[in-house]
Amino acid sequence: MDLWEAIKERRSIRRYVQGCDVPAETVEQLLQAAIAAPSAGNRQPWHFVVVRDAETKQGLAEAAYGQRFVAQAPVVIVVCADPAQSAARYGRRGSELYCLQDTAAATENILLGVTALGLGACWVGAFDEGAAATVLDLPSHLRPVAMIPIGHPGVRFAGRTSRRPLSEMTTFI
Amino acid sequence: MDLWEAIKERRSIRRYVQGCDVPAETVEQLLQAAIAAPSAGNRQPWHFVVVRDAETKQGLAEAAYGQRFVAQAPVVIVVCADPAQSAARYGRRGSELYCLQDTAAATENILLGVTALGLGACWVGAFDEGAAATVLDLPSHLRPVAMIPIGHPGVRFAGRTSRRPLSEMTTFI
Repeated sequence: MDLWEAIKERRSIRRYVQGCDVPAETVEQLLQAAIAAPSAGNRQPWHFVVVRDAETKQGLAEAAYGQRFVAQAPVVIVVCADPAQSAARYGRRGSELYCLQDTAAATENILLGVTALGLGACWVGAFDEGAAATVLDLPSHLRPVAMIPIGHPGVRFAGRTSRRPLSEMTTFI
Repeated sequence: MDLWEAIKERRSIRRYVQGCDVPAETVEQLLQAAIAAPSAGNRQPWHFVVVRDAETKQGLAEAAYGQRFVAQAPVVIVVCADPAQSAARYGRRGSELYCLQDTAAATENILLGVTALGLGACWVGAFDEGAAATVLDLPSHLRPVAMIPIGHPGVRFAGRTSRRPLSEMTTFI
């Protein structure tokens, strides 16, 4: 799929066809896209947890304040930041800004890849990080920053959310 | 350009052909890609400052600790976050996480668009935010989080930075 089309067609999909899997090769393709994202000083301050286990997905949905669709996707990629990885070189700017930006760029790459593959996903940010870390048994240096449930879209048409006009969000100097 | 190719071919380009402009329509296309990025609750907590003025670009380069290439690009897009926009709905998680993630996703879209157009750019994060805000005369609610100098690539070949193997950065559950 053309880049511009992928950017334009990306949607938040919260309903997935049940019993329809996302194969391991597809997940790998998406993760390769993720790690192609830029990172400050090429620190690559990220880790990805690929969750297929039903009980673990259920735990993630609960950590996400009961957003049940998280558990209904065949696979959930949890994007984790490694703040110390960035802080080792950049101090607080690394841990409080760069590692969040870098993992967000990786997340966006995954979402665009999902779109290009005709799959559906949603960037879930509203969750209790401590609860999610417990569910995933994460080592203490990793911070879960996004959950991405991925599946075959269970909706025929997902409307695009509106945008304010560009003119209101731009200044020229 | 194909999405996967754009993701793979994106590079940090820090040298630009002098006297070779990036037209306004191109900048608009890139900004449309930026605002197509997802944002938590569709808050769109971003603002973009498009800088062509030489003196202002010089000021940005100085705010970026003397990274001179910032001033050598025909245009610099400064991506700003609007933390209060996210905080109004999500509190501290909005101002300290979501607005940074949302603007990073927008930044990644710009960089992919730049790649697809055969242009070159670099995600600059190392700068003094206060100094950049002063140079741009930003209102106090905006926080500059990335500078993106954009131009025609002044290098014939830019190597890809290496990546650690995916297997080291992935866990399966």
